[in-house]
Amino acid sequence: MTHHKNANSRIPAVAVLGLGPMGRALAAASLAAGHPTVLWNRSPDKAAPLVARGASVAATPAEAARRASVVLTCVVDYEAARAVVAGLASGSTAMVVNLSSGHAAQARDMASWAAGQGIDYLDGAIVTPAPTIGTPAASILYSGPRALYDRSAIVRESLGAGVYLGADAGTAAAYEMALLDLFTMCVGGLAHAFALAAAEGISPEAFARFARGIGHLLPDMSDRFADQLSTGSFSADVSSIASAGSAIAHVRAAASARDLDTAPLRAVQSIIDRAVAAGYGDDSYARLAQSLSSVGRTVTPIENPA
Amino acid sequence: MTHHKNANSRIPAVAVLGLGPMGRALAAASLAAGHPTVLWNRSPDKAAPLVARGASVAATPAEAARRASVVLTCVVDYEAARAVVAGLASGSTAMVVNLSSGHAAQARDMASWAAGQGIDYLDGAIVTPAPTIGTPAASILYSGPRALYDRSAIVRESLGAGVYLGADAGTAAAYEMALLDLFTMCVGGLAHAFALAAAEGISPEAFARFARGIGHLLPDMSDRFADQLSTGSFSADVSSIASAGSAIAHVRAAASARDLDTAPLRAVQSIIDRAVAAGYGDDSYARLAQSLSSVGRTVTPIENPA
Repeated sequence: MTHHKNANSRIPAVAVLGLGPMGRALAAASLAAGHPTVLWNRSPDKAAPLVARGASVAATPAEAARRASVVLTCVVDYEAARAVVAGLASGSTAMVVNLSSGHAAQARDMASWAAGQGIDYLDGAIVTPAPTIGTPAASILYSGPRALYDRSAIVRESLGAGVYLGADAGTAAAYEMALLDLFTMCVGGLAHAFALAAAEGISPEAFARFARGIGHLLPDMSDRFADQLSTGSFSADVSSIASAGSAIAHVRAAASARDLDTAPLRAVQSIIDRAVAAGYGDDSYARLAQSLSSVGRTVTPIENPA
Repeated sequence: MTHHKNANSRIPAVAVLGLGPMGRALAAASLAAGHPTVLWNRSPDKAAPLVARGASVAATPAEAARRASVVLTCVVDYEAARAVVAGLASGSTAMVVNLSSGHAAQARDMASWAAGQGIDYLDGAIVTPAPTIGTPAASILYSGPRALYDRSAIVRESLGAGVYLGADAGTAAAYEMALLDLFTMCVGGLAHAFALAAAEGISPEAFARFARGIGHLLPDMSDRFADQLSTGSFSADVSSIASAGSAIAHVRAAASARDLDTAPLRAVQSIIDRAVAAGYGDDSYARLAQSLSSVGRTVTPIENPA
């Protein structure tokens, strides 16, 4: 990271509202890229290490916004984000980029509300961990007015690679939720698998040696899901849903024998069982996704990135 | 794969009992490596494509075993494996390598039973998908008498890379169960995430573009789990359990809003909630594994590979 000690007037000032781990990472990246950076957090003590690196602190969100041209909000949810942004409505011309987590409908509601308040609002979703922020490994999704995406370019580039997903403010949140769905299930799977390994007396290092291999299967499996869901052809080229059902029944028995919580396995097994009951036992795993979402429902497609 | 059309007497004959997708892959690899290969399956029609490639068919498991020096069993579970192997007790000096799935206690029981029957028994677990068999991508775990692992070397090498995990016949199955735990949770996560993406109108291809990135995080996460579980230090260098709890609550709301089954998310959330309630909210994800297995229980460590 390059430090621009003599920030010139072309480097916009940034306000960061919310200093959880992700907010602190955003502020650090902003400072590292030379932006005058002003911080606000409900409990101000979180700002100290960033102030030591040149950030200033504001007493209120409104004060922070008055000193910045781009406001980044990163708080626990959309309700908290709206409470913070509500204070900005008068006295600031800064645009708001809300990087707080939430689902698509919440993002759309917030965008409508902000429009009503005369606030320039862009929605964003950070889909990589906090330590990636300000590095090439970061990935941040944005949706909302294209003009605001462009207007925030210099600030966005300080944070990491951005992807513009379209004008519908809910799109970035929709992607974030589906990615967090996958991520949290994988974390749950890791935790459960390491616990089962430990219960069997397998050391964490010995287990990790093989568990990494499962991780390496996932990117290709994602692509196979996409191909098969797009074409609607679910041939079990690798493994069938029925074989996954048989496998998970074995794992449940192993976990039960070690008094381990089997609820996550039972939940996945019930998805498999429903697909088998629907006649999809010989199909590939991708059919599970289609089977899960086959409940009648009206969906308005949102724009997809090129 | 190299085809040895003129199999000589140094290439041992192989019997494959059970012709599901994995059994057929084993038989194909055996044939491809030039082993005289004899097949048995409950429904004999599965053998036809392999017979066209040079395999012979036996009317009973015992007949198959009499024509082979190594018997590979690959049936639905240990109960089925024992029923098949029971027919071999007299009239065969072939060793048995049981590659059927099951948990550690079942493997140990089967090994004890086989010893009582005078059958040379090695337990194995295939931890890569059927198409890898006979290729460098295959990974097969073995446990049981070292002498039998060595005696089966030529046959094992035809199937793919093997790892010897020790004399305890249950070890390979213990590893397999923990790996299948992780794998089936990841498959469940993929299915649920693609379903949620579809419900939000995101195309499978667009979603896969980002979902692959989640897969790429898993190998490093496995290593981090192992490091932290070994050292007992759970500093949340990347993300905390509390942040995962907040994330999964958002995803649940998103899934509920689309009438999607939330049971898998609720099951993972309850693991997170229990860890937070135990005071581990600021710790890293690896603490979840420790927290899951912290229920008092006596474990006899099994041998771990070098």
